[in-house]
Amino acid sequence: MFISFEGTEGVGKTTLIRKIYDHLTAQGREVVLTREPGGTPMAEQIRSLLLSVNHEEQMSNDTELLLMYAARAQHLEQVILPALQAGQIVLCDRFTDASFAYQCAGRGLSEAKLQVLNDSFVSRMPDFTFWLDAPIELGMNRARARGALDRFEQEKVTFFEKVRMGYQTLSERHPERMKRLDASQAPEQVLTQALQYLDSV
Amino acid sequence: MFISFEGTEGVGKTTLIRKIYDHLTAQGREVVLTREPGGTPMAEQIRSLLLSVNHEEQMSNDTELLLMYAARAQHLEQVILPALQAGQIVLCDRFTDASFAYQCAGRGLSEAKLQVLNDSFVSRMPDFTFWLDAPIELGMNRARARGALDRFEQEKVTFFEKVRMGYQTLSERHPERMKRLDASQAPEQVLTQALQYLDSV
Repeated sequence: MFISFEGTEGVGKTTLIRKIYDHLTAQGREVVLTREPGGTPMAEQIRSLLLSVNHEEQMSNDTELLLMYAARAQHLEQVILPALQAGQIVLCDRFTDASFAYQCAGRGLSEAKLQVLNDSFVSRMPDFTFWLDAPIELGMNRARARGALDRFEQEKVTFFEKVRMGYQTLSERHPERMKRLDASQAPEQVLTQALQYLDSV
Repeated sequence: MFISFEGTEGVGKTTLIRKIYDHLTAQGREVVLTREPGGTPMAEQIRSLLLSVNHEEQMSNDTELLLMYAARAQHLEQVILPALQAGQIVLCDRFTDASFAYQCAGRGLSEAKLQVLNDSFVSRMPDFTFWLDAPIELGMNRARARGALDRFEQEKVTFFEKVRMGYQTLSERHPERMKRLDASQAPEQVLTQALQYLDSV
């Protein structure tokens, strides 16, 4: 089982994933907890390039998208596919939906470009996806409280509103796969909602 | 005018490009000399990832290809397209043909994957391409004489034979764009051959 977690900055993805990890491992399940971009030492190096703030040279939208998929290809081959083949549960902080939400809905990159990358380089999609949704300001305040902001977190509120609408679009397109969680609730309530859903599938 | 230079390791691309650069600038032309993967600070960081030898984790073929195109997208947007728009001549050490020769012919990656990347992320192809061709052993001896070998240079001779055949295939497909130079000649003879061709177009 391959489960991804999506949402804008500061909505509580990391907290929820850790709690679900604890819950499943307490049940004796073998669980792999991973994240994108990243998940392998090499993909984490690509992540560093993606998140680092470079004031001399702006990263082109195409470059950003291709780096995301370079990291994803490595992550799929080295971590996700082997874990699934070994019968483990994979919990992944962000996957292809994030590319749609951030690069297409957020930055305005053509969806056709994303589609060819998905078709050619993503051989396995998540079985289901939790979308943690909360008003942008709420999440931004949490992200700011964590300290220095990375290249994505430095974007303006209007950018994140577009990203959020991107997730909304995806959840309408894929109602069977994507489950919206109200992330403005207390973390325990979000967990309860997620576990109820997990138990039902 | 956008001119690329292709060939396996140690065939003398760098030497030839520098001489052509000197020749054209002596004529008063504005010339940009650049290389792939790389050509911008950010793309050079991607190059470092691509060339570095990592003994703990093998880079997947998809990741290698996508990193190449991430660097290329940045290079096109930041360097190649602006220079061409400003009427400058761009001399580029490797371009998309190298991806075909190394990743498809060399590593056996499907050409369909390369094709979708070219179609979606490469808006400008070279006007023409010099293919410096020489027997693999000759070039490998030169590359070894330069010192420590990078991740590509460490490949076996059979790999480079496939890469060379890849260039052969491309030169048959694109006879109007690709010009083979006999790189087993002395560097001055290669230059003479290249300049004769340049003067004729």
